[in-house]
Amino acid sequence: MTHFDAPLVIRTKRDGGRLSADAIDWVIHAYSRGEVADEQMSALLMAVFLRGMDRDEIARWTAAMVASGERLDFTDLRRDGKPLALVDKHSTGGVGDKLTLTVVPVVIACGGVVPQAAGRGLGHTGGTLDKLEAISGFTAELSKHQIRQQLCDVGAAIFAAGELAPADRKIYALRDVTGTTESLPLIASSVMSKKIAEGTRALVLDVKVGSGAFLKTEAESRELARTMVDLGTGEGLPTRALLTDMNTPLGATVGNSVEVAEALEVLAGGGPPDVVELTLALAAEMLDVAGLDARDPAETLRDGSAMDRFGALVAAQGGDLSVPLPLGAHAETVTADRGGTMGDIDAMAVAMAAWRLGAGRAHPGRPVQSGAGVRIHRRPGEQVTAGEPVFTLYTDTPERFGSALAALDGGWSIAGEFSRRPLVIDRIVK
Amino acid sequence: MTHFDAPLVIRTKRDGGRLSADAIDWVIHAYSRGEVADEQMSALLMAVFLRGMDRDEIARWTAAMVASGERLDFTDLRRDGKPLALVDKHSTGGVGDKLTLTVVPVVIACGGVVPQAAGRGLGHTGGTLDKLEAISGFTAELSKHQIRQQLCDVGAAIFAAGELAPADRKIYALRDVTGTTESLPLIASSVMSKKIAEGTRALVLDVKVGSGAFLKTEAESRELARTMVDLGTGEGLPTRALLTDMNTPLGATVGNSVEVAEALEVLAGGGPPDVVELTLALAAEMLDVAGLDARDPAETLRDGSAMDRFGALVAAQGGDLSVPLPLGAHAETVTADRGGTMGDIDAMAVAMAAWRLGAGRAHPGRPVQSGAGVRIHRRPGEQVTAGEPVFTLYTDTPERFGSALAALDGGWSIAGEFSRRPLVIDRIVK
Repeated sequence: MTHFDAPLVIRTKRDGGRLSADAIDWVIHAYSRGEVADEQMSALLMAVFLRGMDRDEIARWTAAMVASGERLDFTDLRRDGKPLALVDKHSTGGVGDKLTLTVVPVVIACGGVVPQAAGRGLGHTGGTLDKLEAISGFTAELSKHQIRQQLCDVGAAIFAAGELAPADRKIYALRDVTGTTESLPLIASSVMSKKIAEGTRALVLDVKVGSGAFLKTEAESRELARTMVDLGTGEGLPTRALLTDMNTPLGATVGNSVEVAEALEVLAGGGPPDVVELTLALAAEMLDVAGLDARDPAETLRDGSAMDRFGALVAAQGGDLSVPLPLGAHAETVTADRGGTMGDIDAMAVAMAAWRLGAGRAHPGRPVQSGAGVRIHRRPGEQVTAGEPVFTLYTDTPERFGSALAALDGGWSIAGEFSRRPLVIDRIVK
Repeated sequence: MTHFDAPLVIRTKRDGGRLSADAIDWVIHAYSRGEVADEQMSALLMAVFLRGMDRDEIARWTAAMVASGERLDFTDLRRDGKPLALVDKHSTGGVGDKLTLTVVPVVIACGGVVPQAAGRGLGHTGGTLDKLEAISGFTAELSKHQIRQQLCDVGAAIFAAGELAPADRKIYALRDVTGTTESLPLIASSVMSKKIAEGTRALVLDVKVGSGAFLKTEAESRELARTMVDLGTGEGLPTRALLTDMNTPLGATVGNSVEVAEALEVLAGGGPPDVVELTLALAAEMLDVAGLDARDPAETLRDGSAMDRFGALVAAQGGDLSVPLPLGAHAETVTADRGGTMGDIDAMAVAMAAWRLGAGRAHPGRPVQSGAGVRIHRRPGEQVTAGEPVFTLYTDTPERFGSALAALDGGWSIAGEFSRRPLVIDRIVK
């Protein structure tokens, strides 16, 4: 291999050049081993942010991050003598996005098998693990043996990414503190490195568009979706994406335990219509890409089979749904100062409020409050009477109400503008 | 003061925005105290590299770095009852640039007083302190008291920048490893923060243009000169700049002890004509900006007064010029394979050769070889006979000859092109 050093690689990208495959392999490998320093990687990340990477560079960067750790493989597993129909979903991060909790049980109930390496939240979007950990006893720290067993017995395992793509984990933490998160090549490679390493054999991406998404324009989100679909397909992982609206929170809850409760409502056949619609759209896409001649996913919500599978999954990972979900010890209600139609509710405003209440974290590794969050009583387009509760905020740390209320302020209005948007904007396939 | 955090400041510059005065003060102060991490500062430096800073931002960045440490003040010193005519020079870094060693004694001999905070070399350009430390016993670690005493007694002090602008020292080290050295705003603020903090009251900059300079185009070097002249003037430090040619090494030596020997030749009234010419040009400019009705600087080389001052300066700082200068224990000669006119000699090629021989350092804090370097026997435009020595290379580590010769190769030719350029290209004044 050619001799590389970090300043050389940094300068190449800084000056708008392409990084060779060897240069990418070298820098990711050397960074994993601590031979490239954090300050050097962060200069490179900023250069990538501002100069971009082309498709070949992104693919190699992704592959190098996969190669920095173990790549799980479940293709040897059999159920009834047949290989498992391994399929996963990933969301680029929305507000009120509890869809893993509803989609995975539906897909299992229809014969799919879901190995999901999931993350904890950082910044304004919640993490699937933070939500599941609101359930008493639930653990995502599964051994490889447990994951394999659970895929066969239960049909899914939702586990902490742990040692998968460790270079990505280091880089992700660095991006968070160096202002380099919202970069298409860096988002695409981060997502796809974990999904390739986790061992799924098919993938559906839920790529968010709108104020609550990481990338702000539809064009950027579309390009992100296209990039990830091509990346997955190029690595032999059939991948599709749905572009979905994230201007307003999904459903009526944003937080951890409040979102679990809402997911349970959906699994019981109720719940907010947008959560149900997107659950079924994603599940149908997953079953299709996994090649499953499936029963109607909606049926699994009506007949209780999805709820059964969720119970089995939670129980297999130590969770106890009979223990009441925690709710913040303190609540504050926002009431309508006049009657009218509820206008748009800005996803980012609600996300910031939930985050300030304690539902999210500012630094990796910190705990979150399971019971903190926001409940939305009147959703866009619904009628409101003066004096009615519009939002309830929950937290264990009531001194946070002030800043949370300030975050919410201006993010909603009565008789404000209300735009009915389609939830699924587009479908991106190879 | 507004509340800042590092990602916020980084994102502002990343997205092409202006950093407010408060944001700059905050980030430099917080970085000095270790509250902004190296990886955050390096992301910011890359964003500055790629997005630039305007004049106001550069001025504030410079002032914040000055404020991170002590600002020396010698205006209370008197000689014969009068304030000292404090004036300094600074070169942006050339190859074979031993001019501090010749200019300072000439200026002292003409009545100027020079407080110079000098640096050690990093990368391809040599450091003034590395050259002076080739003299037996010479030290640049002077106390403030010693500096003051020496300015009064000898007329100059050349000292390690030490605690001056400590934020700049940290940032300079970071730039070196993160590919962010060649940035106009960062070079200008680094140079000027040290010169403002060192306590000089007038300044002449020698801004290099050409292959051996940090910035490669004349337009960039001109903009750098203009920026620094305006910065100094804006801070109440009368500043001028000469734009000078650095396509070919200055003089006939590149290294440490070999450059000291050449400076002594110049002070003795001989030496290469380009070194003499630029010495006198810089000295005249310094005397003029310091408001000194000076004698002819050339006279101080002829009458030995500059040599006397150099001897006094070296002696005051512990140096002993009676001890022979060290020379690399091993020498290798490059001879002409044919006769003709010596063509252009590329400054960068010679700099790399000297660096590989051990005259420079790859990492801050490492020692250099005082005796390593290159002697140029035939300068551009001179006649060469086949078989004659053209270069001699010196080192204590002969295993380095191979890579040094490789660096030199292609950087010169006989009967190649030879372009006679003016040494002083332009003069930039307020």
